Amino acid sequence: MPQESDFALEDVQVPEPGAGEVLVRALYVSVDPYQRGRMSETRSYARSLELGDVITSQAIGEVVESRDPRFAPGDIALGQLGWQEHAVARAGSLRKIDPSVAPITTALHVLGATGLTAWFGLFDVGRPRAGDTVVVSGAAGAVGQVAGQLARIAGCRTVGIAGGAEKCSDLRELYSYDAAVDYKRDDFREALKEACAGAVDVYFDNVGGEVSAAVHRRLNVGARIAICGQVSQYNADRPQPSFHPGLLIVFRATMQGFLVNDYASRFGEALPRLARWVADGTLRYREDVTDGLENAPRAFIGLLNGRNRGKALVKVAEPGSSL
Amino acid sequence: MPQESDFALEDVQVPEPGAGEVLVRALYVSVDPYQRGRMSETRSYARSLELGDVITSQAIGEVVESRDPRFAPGDIALGQLGWQEHAVARAGSLRKIDPSVAPITTALHVLGATGLTAWFGLFDVGRPRAGDTVVVSGAAGAVGQVAGQLARIAGCRTVGIAGGAEKCSDLRELYSYDAAVDYKRDDFREALKEACAGAVDVYFDNVGGEVSAAVHRRLNVGARIAICGQVSQYNADRPQPSFHPGLLIVFRATMQGFLVNDYASRFGEALPRLARWVADGTLRYREDVTDGLENAPRAFIGLLNGRNRGKALVKVAEPGSSL
Repeated sequence: MPQESDFALEDVQVPEPGAGEVLVRALYVSVDPYQRGRMSETRSYARSLELGDVITSQAIGEVVESRDPRFAPGDIALGQLGWQEHAVARAGSLRKIDPSVAPITTALHVLGATGLTAWFGLFDVGRPRAGDTVVVSGAAGAVGQVAGQLARIAGCRTVGIAGGAEKCSDLRELYSYDAAVDYKRDDFREALKEACAGAVDVYFDNVGGEVSAAVHRRLNVGARIAICGQVSQYNADRPQPSFHPGLLIVFRATMQGFLVNDYASRFGEALPRLARWVADGTLRYREDVTDGLENAPRAFIGLLNGRNRGKALVKVAEPGSSL
Repeated sequence: MPQESDFALEDVQVPEPGAGEVLVRALYVSVDPYQRGRMSETRSYARSLELGDVITSQAIGEVVESRDPRFAPGDIALGQLGWQEHAVARAGSLRKIDPSVAPITTALHVLGATGLTAWFGLFDVGRPRAGDTVVVSGAAGAVGQVAGQLARIAGCRTVGIAGGAEKCSDLRELYSYDAAVDYKRDDFREALKEACAGAVDVYFDNVGGEVSAAVHRRLNVGARIAICGQVSQYNADRPQPSFHPGLLIVFRATMQGFLVNDYASRFGEALPRLARWVADGTLRYREDVTDGLENAPRAFIGLLNGRNRGKALVKVAEPGSSL
């Protein structure tokens, strides 16, 4: 588990944008479980951070200076800017955000990476059919809250798993899950069994470990398991092998891992619908905003401990303050 | 691990066939790893055997008496007849075998259940594309030998894993695998790495456990893992969780379990092609025949210990001897 003392906030010279580049002042930076994977030497799908590197992160910022015709000062831009107050980025790597569509922070979650992760993980990997029972772990998290709501929109019965009474209340009241199950309670397994009515058609898995082992016992024949994340394992020295593949024979089930960036060429299928459902109130979300870049490590450690309630963000500056 | 003393050979009255039924005298009964699963109280896809039940088995036999117009004495029939010398079966549950097409024993393997298991597991679950590297564990077994040859026919590079020099020789010489790896050798992991050239596109898994864990480390992005069997786990009190689902994210891989009977409505797609390739020598097989029904338990225990070389069968009687 990372400690706050593992992080350092350093003052450096703000770089000058070159031709085709843009200087952006961060307004919000994102805090996500996948960042833990970068802080490890284990081989994975992306390069690990080196000591001293800026923490990898999406951020929303205001353009301060542009040397590319696509951006002008005052524009709102989304990009892989890292946990820092100012960043220089190539204009082609940034996406311009229209603040009139939705609050700009939504580009960091429901109308951005986590919403798209939920979309493609649910529809392409989970492949729900109307009437299916869809179980989501980490259901109150940034991805889980969207996955459950999309499954409900698609005519499924939705069961969310989260830790604690507050998150379970959000599952029912805010994200409209049909049932909410608290994995921290002693009666978790019985409550899960009752909520699933014996048969899970789609399991959208954000957490792994013991919670997932309990869900695996409730699968229906032909079940699809979308492996989105395994946050319960991210701080283990060696991830515990938690799964026996023979179970997939018993249920003729499919377990598939995915990364949202593999669907980049198809983001346009999802974003307009997500935006419409956010605008008309069909798709709801909660943000957990921490003030001040210096508090990003604390927000991150809180996320790994499940202490956030909604999408974890760090507010770095007020919009307009940089102009 | 079952003991021979767990089995008993009992003399009982041969039953009379009723209307629509057929009395069959067994010629060959099948010996298969899945039978171990029936000898357990663990919940699975099929009912467990009770103490005293006849062992579940496919068998090839000669019709002795028929009370159905579809069968006449002397016909060769395939069915779920169990490990017994005579069985009465409903005519509709039997398949008539034409002895002029191929040796009748092939209806118990390459032109029957194990060939079909290889076909649907490879093509529907593994989904190989020409040029893929396909790894098969239990590659010299009844299913594995066919899966590897089908992958080769489909233009793939095939790597077979088996235990011991004799089986590995069969992999190369008889089943035309491009590479054979002996899991009993100390250099197994290095040999596997070299044979796979770093990237496994399809893994057809019959064994599970440590062998599979070594293959999982060599997956390519987008790999498909077909879970056909997990024979290394069948005698464990509790199957060891051997797999960490997070690996599927790293490789955006899919792991799917299957049962051949789920494809029953599509057997007609596969059988004519399998028969053609057997007839023209494209598809080769080896049988490991034990004489005498009383020796079936020994053959079965040998199979679970990997001592068979080819499809395990027990010869119960000579064709024609019952007429």
